[in-house]
Amino acid sequence: MRDVAIIGASQTKFGELWDVSFRDLVVEAGLKAIEDAGIVGDDLDAMYVGNMSAGLFVGQEHIASLIADHAGLTPIPCARVEAACASGGLALRNGIMAVASGFHDMVISAGVEKMTDIVDPTPAIATASDQEWEAQQGVTFPSLYAMMARRHMYEYGTTREQLAMFSVINHKNASKNPLAQYQNTITVDQVLNSSKVADPLTLLDCSPVTDGAAGVIICPAEDAKKYTDTPIYVKAAAQASGTIALHNRRDITTIDSSVNASRKAYKMAGVGPKDIDVAEVHDCFSINGILAIEDLGFVEKGKGGPAVEEGMTEMDGEIPVNPSGGLKARGHPLGATGIAQAAEIVKQLKGEAGKRQVNGAEIGMTHNIGGTGGTAVVHILSN
Amino acid sequence: MRDVAIIGASQTKFGELWDVSFRDLVVEAGLKAIEDAGIVGDDLDAMYVGNMSAGLFVGQEHIASLIADHAGLTPIPCARVEAACASGGLALRNGIMAVASGFHDMVISAGVEKMTDIVDPTPAIATASDQEWEAQQGVTFPSLYAMMARRHMYEYGTTREQLAMFSVINHKNASKNPLAQYQNTITVDQVLNSSKVADPLTLLDCSPVTDGAAGVIICPAEDAKKYTDTPIYVKAAAQASGTIALHNRRDITTIDSSVNASRKAYKMAGVGPKDIDVAEVHDCFSINGILAIEDLGFVEKGKGGPAVEEGMTEMDGEIPVNPSGGLKARGHPLGATGIAQAAEIVKQLKGEAGKRQVNGAEIGMTHNIGGTGGTAVVHILSN
Repeated sequence: MRDVAIIGASQTKFGELWDVSFRDLVVEAGLKAIEDAGIVGDDLDAMYVGNMSAGLFVGQEHIASLIADHAGLTPIPCARVEAACASGGLALRNGIMAVASGFHDMVISAGVEKMTDIVDPTPAIATASDQEWEAQQGVTFPSLYAMMARRHMYEYGTTREQLAMFSVINHKNASKNPLAQYQNTITVDQVLNSSKVADPLTLLDCSPVTDGAAGVIICPAEDAKKYTDTPIYVKAAAQASGTIALHNRRDITTIDSSVNASRKAYKMAGVGPKDIDVAEVHDCFSINGILAIEDLGFVEKGKGGPAVEEGMTEMDGEIPVNPSGGLKARGHPLGATGIAQAAEIVKQLKGEAGKRQVNGAEIGMTHNIGGTGGTAVVHILSN
Repeated sequence: MRDVAIIGASQTKFGELWDVSFRDLVVEAGLKAIEDAGIVGDDLDAMYVGNMSAGLFVGQEHIASLIADHAGLTPIPCARVEAACASGGLALRNGIMAVASGFHDMVISAGVEKMTDIVDPTPAIATASDQEWEAQQGVTFPSLYAMMARRHMYEYGTTREQLAMFSVINHKNASKNPLAQYQNTITVDQVLNSSKVADPLTLLDCSPVTDGAAGVIICPAEDAKKYTDTPIYVKAAAQASGTIALHNRRDITTIDSSVNASRKAYKMAGVGPKDIDVAEVHDCFSINGILAIEDLGFVEKGKGGPAVEEGMTEMDGEIPVNPSGGLKARGHPLGATGIAQAAEIVKQLKGEAGKRQVNGAEIGMTHNIGGTGGTAVVHILSN
């Protein structure tokens, strides 16, 4: 297996992008990544695209070839990969495998979702849960995560304010990210007093509906310095599946797939949680940010709430989490999120993150979840 | 890159399977493949699932983790891959890459589609074409392939009867395949006189709407003999993209992605078209069977019609094509087709194809197309 590096990364503006089509959006991300890598389109020899549901959001399947065609990249092989909101993480991992195997020498892994072209995205999003046992019974994602939050509060004494604090920090970070969907700061009071979505979660505990795309360029580590003085090396690409329906779970306050994927990743990379200098974690709801820092081993199970409250995950804390603003404030275009996380970590490790730079970051992690944890993908990158 | 082998293969009954759910269908295929390989579920360490549109057909995305959960395979990493009707081919190729790279040692690549659970599958199928430039203008797949057929008839003198003959041979083969959707033989007259779908294509030129699933088990070639005396070796796994919309094509009587993928495959395997003993080609419409044998290099461009008429592709012909009955008669559950093709070639190369056995077959090919050729995946296998 060859070692693999990332030599370019990009993200489009995230938000309600009424003036951009699905195909233009992802091609924009691709072109930016190509430019960032200092290559040309003809250098690419394969593409992976993470996308959860273009079928339901824009009435289009077969999107990888559509994109290759629209971008003038035919005849390169290209595949859409999907695991709900972890689709981007899958695109990254499969792009890494394609290079590691020697099948391909220069791969673009992209992610895209165009969620605002339909009136109500909720039924489409709900297809990430178990349709027969959850969605058809009327359970939506906010309510699934609300149950996880309630149980976490009951088991570990996590407070409503601690949940809110995760959103507050995300918005603070996003205020320094010009590509974020929401660049305004918010307060704990604002979170608590925003509209109730699914008790105890309010609107400001929930990631938004977002259009966006992102891309990274992957090549063999031994070739990376031909293209950039600052390649970012892939130390681990790990993935795990878990129960898709919440009721089948031994414990709804732990996402086993996060635990399994991160432990595999640490083993592959030969590092531990204490070695991670910066992380982008999957906070689709505030509670999931807290579960993430526990399940990734940054804090003990049950200690996520106090850790957030005490500033451990802030930019000047022990382990800065979501400098981009996270899913909550950077935005969460489902299939793009895993790649946007990687793009952020690449920028951080290259020292190119501007006002939100984590000083001296050398090892970074991305953590991307599908559904309520049916899938988890964890990558560890280093400079 | 490690050499890779297939040690087990399966296909469920194809047809209108009203009594089986999506998840039960694919788990049935998986269990049969596991049994065929002589392994147990715990031996698997990753899964790829080819599926075109469970989102639109059964309201469920995130299907790979759903299946892993339902099959008791968590926490293995699993990914759904999609390129319309070539999704199965992608699942096979990505499974091969996952083993070749050393990321995984025992992978199941499956394919599944449950198409009969909705009233009208046509809008879902149409999402494999260019939604904005084709589907929204009212063009359906039969009409796209009808245009390709008309042009082929005009350019090369291909006759209506030659097209029909492709379906006739498929049904003859399927009459010996107990898992085929249609096991009845048909005549050229019956094809010509069946309902017109899109001139010149009639109902019996068109592959049906099908439920079905299939699976193959992949491991390093060096380990294969531990599990079976008759491993089937992967000599090539090649894929290409092409223009997704027909109007952008330099020539609508050639599927460039088929040409590109097959040329890459021949190069990888170190063989040529004359070395192929048996092939499963993507005859979603009769014209595509004829295009396939041309684009794969079995006959010169334009000579596909006469070759079929003269029996070249029959079971006792120069190169038996679609011993399974092909998409037309075995059935075409979109995401399952590429894996079902591989399962058929594996059976043929192991000498286990019963009444439809191609005697002495040593090298076989699968050819899987997405849409009208936006994607093509070609595999070459040998015993």
